[in-house]
Amino acid sequence: MQVTNTIEKTRELVNNWKKEGKTIGLVPTMGYLHEGHASLIRRCREENDIVVVSDFVNPTQFGPNEDLEAYPRDFDRDSALCESIGADLIFCPSPVEMYHDPHAFVSIDTLSDTLCGKTRPIHFKGVCTVVSKLFNIVKPDRAYFGQKDAQQLAIIRKMVLDLNFDIQIVGCPIVREEDGLAKSSRNTYLSCEERKAALCLSKAVKKGQELIRNGITASEVLEPMCEIINSEPLARIDYVSMVDALSMQPVDSVNADVLVAMAVYIGKTRLIDNFSYEV
Amino acid sequence: MQVTNTIEKTRELVNNWKKEGKTIGLVPTMGYLHEGHASLIRRCREENDIVVVSDFVNPTQFGPNEDLEAYPRDFDRDSALCESIGADLIFCPSPVEMYHDPHAFVSIDTLSDTLCGKTRPIHFKGVCTVVSKLFNIVKPDRAYFGQKDAQQLAIIRKMVLDLNFDIQIVGCPIVREEDGLAKSSRNTYLSCEERKAALCLSKAVKKGQELIRNGITASEVLEPMCEIINSEPLARIDYVSMVDALSMQPVDSVNADVLVAMAVYIGKTRLIDNFSYEV
Repeated sequence: MQVTNTIEKTRELVNNWKKEGKTIGLVPTMGYLHEGHASLIRRCREENDIVVVSDFVNPTQFGPNEDLEAYPRDFDRDSALCESIGADLIFCPSPVEMYHDPHAFVSIDTLSDTLCGKTRPIHFKGVCTVVSKLFNIVKPDRAYFGQKDAQQLAIIRKMVLDLNFDIQIVGCPIVREEDGLAKSSRNTYLSCEERKAALCLSKAVKKGQELIRNGITASEVLEPMCEIINSEPLARIDYVSMVDALSMQPVDSVNADVLVAMAVYIGKTRLIDNFSYEV
Repeated sequence: MQVTNTIEKTRELVNNWKKEGKTIGLVPTMGYLHEGHASLIRRCREENDIVVVSDFVNPTQFGPNEDLEAYPRDFDRDSALCESIGADLIFCPSPVEMYHDPHAFVSIDTLSDTLCGKTRPIHFKGVCTVVSKLFNIVKPDRAYFGQKDAQQLAIIRKMVLDLNFDIQIVGCPIVREEDGLAKSSRNTYLSCEERKAALCLSKAVKKGQELIRNGITASEVLEPMCEIINSEPLARIDYVSMVDALSMQPVDSVNADVLVAMAVYIGKTRLIDNFSYEV
C-alpha cells in the first residue's frame, strides 16, 4: 500500500493506473476509521482493480463553532486498517495542499437547505467542493459513501448527475454497534453516561421503521420517535424530519420514497441517524 | 467528423478514444463560429489526437434581460467550418439535455465580482458550471479559450487550479478584423453605422498599449482610452478598467501583470475588448 501527501504524486499514480486500463474505486473519508468505513473499503475492494482511500479532515465543511480542532485523528491506525483490507493507496494531503487561496467552489441549492444543511449552512458547500476535488484528483470509476450521512449521499448523487461526473456513486448501509448505536468517529466524544443516552437515536429509528407504511402521515411517524428521544434527559433534538428521498424537501405523508433523518445533541456531541423507506 | 446531441453518446466516443490512449482537445463555443473560434480549433488540431468542439448557447450564463433569444445560430455553417479544420466531433446538446432540474453548480468568488461580473452578476456562475460539465463529459487533456473573454479565461484557469481539473488551459490571442475590431459573434448585431462606431474599442486598446509601462498609474492609461470611446456618440462605456491579471481586482498602477479590459455598448450591442501587459 502506498501513501501520498501531494496532489501531483497522487495524479501520477492514478494516471499510470488509468493507462494500464485499471478501474479505480475511491472511499473519501475524514479518517479515524471505524467499521462503517471498513465496510465501504471492503465493498470498494470487491468491485475495483485499485482501491484509493482519502484521509482528509476537510476544514471547509466545518462551521466556525464546530469541532474541526477536536475532530479525532489517528493516521497510523487508519493506515493499518486500510492495509489490512487491501487498499492500494491512502491519499492524505495537508489542508494547505488542498487549499491555497481558494476561490472556486461547488455547491448545491434546495437539497442543502434542509436537515443538517439548516444547522450547518456552509457544510454541504464544503463537502461538494472537496468531493469534486477528490474526484478530479483520483478520477475514480466508483466512489463509496455511507448511508449514515444520508443527506450527503443524496447531494453527492445529485451533484454527480448535474455536473456530469462519469462516476458511479455507491451508497452503503449504516453499520451499528451491537446495541444499535450507529458507528461514528464522533462517538469517541461521548462519556460513559452519554454513550448510554445516545441509544435513543437508534431506538427512535427502530420505532420509525416499525410505524412507517404507505400513506401514513409524517407526524404519525415522527411524534413517537421524538417522544423516545425527549424522554432521554441528556438528549436535545436538532431535527427529526421526513423528507423526499431525492429532493430532501419535507413531506407531509409517505407517497414516494422518503428519508427519515435526525440530528440529536447528546451533551455537546451532535449525532445523526436515519432510515429510508421505499413505497 | 461526427455530431452528437446527447451526453451518453459523447461519453461513449470519448471513453473509447481514452481507451485507445488518444489525447483529446476541447474547444467550448456558443456556435456562430468566426475566425477567432477557427484559430482555437486549428491550435487544438495541432496539439491533440482528437479535436472536440462543443456548440451550445448556454442559457444559464445569460441574465434575464440579455440576448439569449437573439443570440445568432447557424449550425450548418459551424459544422462546415469545423469539418474544414479537421475536427473529429461537434457536441451540440439541447438545453434540456444539459439541464434537467439542475441544483448543483460551480462558481467562483472575488474574480467574478469585477469587470463583466459586475454588470452580469450570474454570468460566470453559468460559465463555470457549463465548462465544468463539458470538462466532465469530454474529459479533455487540453481546452482552448480566447483571450478576448479575458476575465472568463482567468476564471477558468483559477477554477481548474482550485478544483484540480487535470486539464491544460490554453489561451489564444484575440483575432481582429482588418480594421481592428475584435471578432465576435455579437458583431452581427451591428448596423453599418454602429460597425464604424465600434472601432472606438480597438482604437482605445491601441492607445492603451502605446501608453502602458511599468509603474504608470491606471488613470494615466485609462483616461486617454475613455476619451477615445467618449468621443464616439454611439458608444456608452460599461467599464474600462485595469485589474491584476490573476485576481481580477482593480490596481492603481502597473506593478505586476495586468489586464486592461473594457465593455462598451454600441447602440444596444455590448462589446468587449482588452489587452494584457506583463511587467
